[in-house]
Amino acid sequence: MNLTSDWIDRLKFDANGLIPAIAQDYRDGAVLMMAWMNREAIARTIETREVHYWSRSRQELWHKGATSGHIQKLQEMYFDCDADVLLLKIEQVGDIACHTGVRSCFFNQVQLG
Amino acid sequence: MNLTSDWIDRLKFDANGLIPAIAQDYRDGAVLMMAWMNREAIARTIETREVHYWSRSRQELWHKGATSGHIQKLQEMYFDCDADVLLLKIEQVGDIACHTGVRSCFFNQVQLG
Repeated sequence: MNLTSDWIDRLKFDANGLIPAIAQDYRDGAVLMMAWMNREAIARTIETREVHYWSRSRQELWHKGATSGHIQKLQEMYFDCDADVLLLKIEQVGDIACHTGVRSCFFNQVQLG
Repeated sequence: MNLTSDWIDRLKFDANGLIPAIAQDYRDGAVLMMAWMNREAIARTIETREVHYWSRSRQELWHKGATSGHIQKLQEMYFDCDADVLLLKIEQVGDIACHTGVRSCFFNQVQLG
């Protein structure tokens, strides 16, 4: 596990050592969720090609889908111009990313009136 | 300007009063950038239908595109299951969201090897 790759060293982690990661369906571009990664989560994700996050509520490494089976297979990975956000293009196994049992976590639409 | 709408009160802002906002092209689903909003940025965005963020570096309200002309016209707005991330579906005027002059801020692709 290489935690000191050049590109990882370019990333700007926050005061807690975390960086936001957007998970996007690689097929149709749907934004499925956003969660947080630390260095270890990034390294494990690249090593296994299955997305790992850092759970802020549980304060532990979180292999997404390890319990539910709804793992996320990494297809492509990007970081932004400021190197403080990650974009993960993934295959969402089961087509369910949200812990509520739906495809995307962004199911609450604001009525703009 | 209504800063106390029911749905805004459901949002979970961080210790700095901010929430991440993902900007996605409403036409083809491309993720263009991620920035941060506070209550005022959200209210101004809904009021004007032009996206406003909170600039963490400048510590001021940031009307995206006010200088460059590359404003973002809000089409749809969502918040996630945990109410701690926003998703903005936007029309990107000029098709340039990034301050570097390109369409999307996510132009750095990680070589997965």
